[in-house]
Amino acid sequence: MAGYGFIGLGIMGKAMAANLVQAGFEVRVWNRSPQKCAPLVELGAVQAASPREVVEACPVTFAMLADPAAAHDVCFGENGVLAGMGPGKAYVDMSTVAPETAASIGEAITARGGRFLEAPVSGSKKPAEDGTLIILAAGDASLFEEAAPAFAKMGKQSFYLGAAGNGARMKLVVNMVMGGMMTIFAEGLALAERGGLNPDQLLEVLAGGAVANPMFALKGPNMLGGNFEAHFPLKHMQKDMRLAVALGDELDQPLFTAAATNESFKRARQMGLGEQDFSAVFRAIHAAG
Amino acid sequence: MAGYGFIGLGIMGKAMAANLVQAGFEVRVWNRSPQKCAPLVELGAVQAASPREVVEACPVTFAMLADPAAAHDVCFGENGVLAGMGPGKAYVDMSTVAPETAASIGEAITARGGRFLEAPVSGSKKPAEDGTLIILAAGDASLFEEAAPAFAKMGKQSFYLGAAGNGARMKLVVNMVMGGMMTIFAEGLALAERGGLNPDQLLEVLAGGAVANPMFALKGPNMLGGNFEAHFPLKHMQKDMRLAVALGDELDQPLFTAAATNESFKRARQMGLGEQDFSAVFRAIHAAG
Amino acid sequence: MAGYGFIGLGIMGKAMAANLVQAGFEVRVWNRSPQKCAPLVELGAVQAASPREVVEACPVTFAMLADPAAAHDVCFGENGVLAGMGPGKAYVDMSTVAPETAASIGEAITARGGRFLEAPVSGSKKPAEDGTLIILAAGDASLFEEAAPAFAKMGKQSFYLGAAGNGARMKLVVNMVMGGMMTIFAEGLALAERGGLNPDQLLEVLAGGAVANPMFALKGPNMLGGNFEAHFPLKHMQKDMRLAVALGDELDQPLFTAAATNESFKRARQMGLGEQDFSAVFRAIHAAG
Amino acid sequence: MAGYGFIGLGIMGKAMAANLVQAGFEVRVWNRSPQKCAPLVELGAVQAASPREVVEACPVTFAMLADPAAAHDVCFGENGVLAGMGPGKAYVDMSTVAPETAASIGEAITARGGRFLEAPVSGSKKPAEDGTLIILAAGDASLFEEAAPAFAKMGKQSFYLGAAGNGARMKLVVNMVMGGMMTIFAEGLALAERGGLNPDQLLEVLAGGAVANPMFALKGPNMLGGNFEAHFPLKHMQKDMRLAVALGDELDQPLFTAAATNESFKRARQMGLGEQDFSAVFRAIHAAG
Repeated sequence: MAGYGFIGLGIMGKAMAANLVQAGFEVRVWNRSPQKCAPLVELGAVQAASPREVVEACPVTFAMLADPAAAHDVCFGENGVLAGMGPGKAYVDMSTVAPETAASIGEAITARGGRFLEAPVSGSKKPAEDGTLIILAAGDASLFEEAAPAFAKMGKQSFYLGAAGNGARMKLVVNMVMGGMMTIFAEGLALAERGGLNPDQLLEVLAGGAVANPMFALKGPNMLGGNFEAHFPLKHMQKDMRLAVALGDELDQPLFTAAATNESFKRARQMGLGEQDFSAVFRAIHAAG
Repeated sequence: MAGYGFIGLGIMGKAMAANLVQAGFEVRVWNRSPQKCAPLVELGAVQAASPREVVEACPVTFAMLADPAAAHDVCFGENGVLAGMGPGKAYVDMSTVAPETAASIGEAITARGGRFLEAPVSGSKKPAEDGTLIILAAGDASLFEEAAPAFAKMGKQSFYLGAAGNGARMKLVVNMVMGGMMTIFAEGLALAERGGLNPDQLLEVLAGGAVANPMFALKGPNMLGGNFEAHFPLKHMQKDMRLAVALGDELDQPLFTAAATNESFKRARQMGLGEQDFSAVFRAIHAAG
Repeated sequence: MAGYGFIGLGIMGKAMAANLVQAGFEVRVWNRSPQKCAPLVELGAVQAASPREVVEACPVTFAMLADPAAAHDVCFGENGVLAGMGPGKAYVDMSTVAPETAASIGEAITARGGRFLEAPVSGSKKPAEDGTLIILAAGDASLFEEAAPAFAKMGKQSFYLGAAGNGARMKLVVNMVMGGMMTIFAEGLALAERGGLNPDQLLEVLAGGAVANPMFALKGPNMLGGNFEAHFPLKHMQKDMRLAVALGDELDQPLFTAAATNESFKRARQMGLGEQDFSAVFRAIHAAG
Repeated sequence: MAGYGFIGLGIMGKAMAANLVQAGFEVRVWNRSPQKCAPLVELGAVQAASPREVVEACPVTFAMLADPAAAHDVCFGENGVLAGMGPGKAYVDMSTVAPETAASIGEAITARGGRFLEAPVSGSKKPAEDGTLIILAAGDASLFEEAAPAFAKMGKQSFYLGAAGNGARMKLVVNMVMGGMMTIFAEGLALAERGGLNPDQLLEVLAGGAVANPMFALKGPNMLGGNFEAHFPLKHMQKDMRLAVALGDELDQPLFTAAATNESFKRARQMGLGEQDFSAVFRAIHAAG
């Protein structure tokens, strides 16, 4: 069975790579902190010494990195992806980055003769583990076809969105909608509690109506119970809101609600909640002081 | 089979009363513009000459009125509900009104020896026709039990929320969440279009993820197609956003996202979109000038 | 010298009435807590037992009350202003109230044959003491002329703004601008401090430029020094912001910046800062948690 | 008399350089479009063929460029400032740029042995012509002393704010406050007009109170008269608001009012008002559709 490279074994990457290994693919892995490779190696993956080594060994390499800086470094750094890139090689960056970062990585890859696909995902820890992510791919169309067997193990749906940059843009729009929904939901819960309503009944009412959605159902009880264990860290959501608002800036598209939401997430960061789940914005909204 | 009164035969009331008639209940109806009674009479309802007459003839009278002013007038006006109210009579106001309006109506009813339940609904034209509204009742608990057979024909779920005022408050919170979701959704669609993404793909991506909900699925294609036929008129949504923000004022609960959303709906009203569906906020957000 | 009545001796009213007494006018005073009359009596005022008594004794009565509820009660309550009102009598309400409250008071006064002027003021404690308020009068034009000698002692400028209601509206607009300026100023100071700038230098830079204004000069050093002694209590500013945003609601005028500002003041109230000076919104903006 | 270089002769730079020439300094000028040098040459300046030539000929060179991209290019481009830089040379960049741009230019200059001062200004066309700018300098303290005679001709006040980056930061904070004030002012004017008040009276009332400031006095009548000739173009103000909000992002400082203001300026850009004066945000706020 054909082999894949996989770079970046954080919360998301670890689960995604594991799904590839468990599906029977040969997988070569690398992570900045090498000890994080161990669980994958136990499952059957092979550990590499650098991104370059992964790319040299595999026709198609996936990457899932924490932020734009890491995505940039892994590509352009010493013994990075570029160092091993060339004709016959392909790179699929599944990290969430700004459209410009995706574009600059893609240009560098194709300048070396390689093929590039950006493929950020929608979904956090649980869908990553369950192989039910939504994959937002853009760039080389032939590579999208080739990566399909791997995408099928990591996600439940894959979209091909056109030119590189569109994956990052779609991801930002989706997360912007998600962040805005979380904030208005948190405002609703806070208003209910202060107004003498039973917030559990609010959850029931919402669950029966036209706005019912899995996020409210999953997060609502945790929020009311004070459980903010991070599935999608608040600081990452705030980063995406910031990038979405910045995309609006670039396109002359006013986004009043998204901007207010972004400030609410910043307020939560100011309160030290950046590492908690993004639903902890409820604490910033509800807290008395 | 026991009879009910029904006052107010607008878009919502007409459908709700029809469901009662078609379920076999004897229903006595009244509407300010009397010609709107005709379709109900055709189905088998009896037309009354005033709210007072309805109340005098029926042990339990339901009302569904367009706004707080109408709800107030029908109760307190000449030959209004109060004029017919007394021991053994009950009034269930299903209109969406401010908590204070509900409270003042309730006090007047009980002062006359009647029983009062406020029971605003979540859901608009289609759920009203299908009998799948969500009913948010508060006030007299015994009346909630008695009205249950009628509620079962008008809605798919009924909640008893405690003291009168809580129904109105819950309705405002629910509509605030709905309005906020609509606005961030509209911002997402506008940002996608301006950013060169296919907004239909955005709908597909959202439909597959944690924020998937019936409202996005139902309204999204209409919004992209420029169809803003009113199911829930924008001016009513803006009124509810305003009342929700005012409730936050009263309770010292800041609501930054709801406030930004309220201004977006006001912007849409400024543009003359008040009579269109509340999803027409998309036009206010997306329009270039 | 002609006599005046003066009702309401809080922070503002006490200073305004004192300026009338010290200018040589005969002044008859009343206050809900009668002991607050003592300092005025010492200066030479005569204490009355009720608003009615004041109005019966004086051709023109001024009032300065804390909020719309007090303004309403003093007019409509037992032994209130209305009870003494009639032809040849005039009432000048200098309280800050909603346009509708001013209108309903004015209608009641004129229905009794009296004349009415609403005349809210711009300026707080210090200008009240110094007789340098700005008076925003609207209603009976002949009464505006007659009240001019008294206005000249209480304020440095008087405006006649047309029909009753315009005074309240102008006051709300002015305070809305003031509140918005305070909030953006507080955000600037907070951003400077967090960004490693010397906020005192920011005050100097602002003082030299096109946005230099007495409020920044007066409040800035106090804000940086943590002195929030109330000249204009935050809860009153928030009330005015709320009423201004509500006026925009009524007129279909979106006010995104004012709405965000209103929520910031609400956040400050949520933190328990309502009784401090309105510049304490700085604490809500700057505070880490 | 000692000579200065001056690079960038747009609206601002032209006036500033002219003040230096007219004060008797020898000035060597360069502009991307060379024909813009003519008016300066007429006054007595010497035209150079490149930024490099300016720097090679002058011990201290000032620059005033339109945006961060131009500031970057003039420094790092072919025959740019860096190409002529070395020990004994100094560069004072008076453009408004992001703190990072200032920092990267400063590092490059000092790496070549030169001295660097960033010195963005507060004030637009008129103060530039009148020599009454406010200069916000940061970087090399000895260069601040040396540039003082030139600063004294271009501005009425110069501040030394510490390490490079602080000038850009202070400028952003000042413009953020100015932009926020303009937006709340525009909302006040719009609310007054819609509410049936005379907006000229609003200007008078504001002029007499604690928030009176030169900007309202200067811009107010123009705004009401529909005169939006650009002194400070709206697109530049929006850029500064965006950078200020981004600085808040970096520092975890929520800025709800500034963010709402930024979106209002974006709305104005969406309407095609970017080249008009920044006071044209009034049109975006007031316009019906």
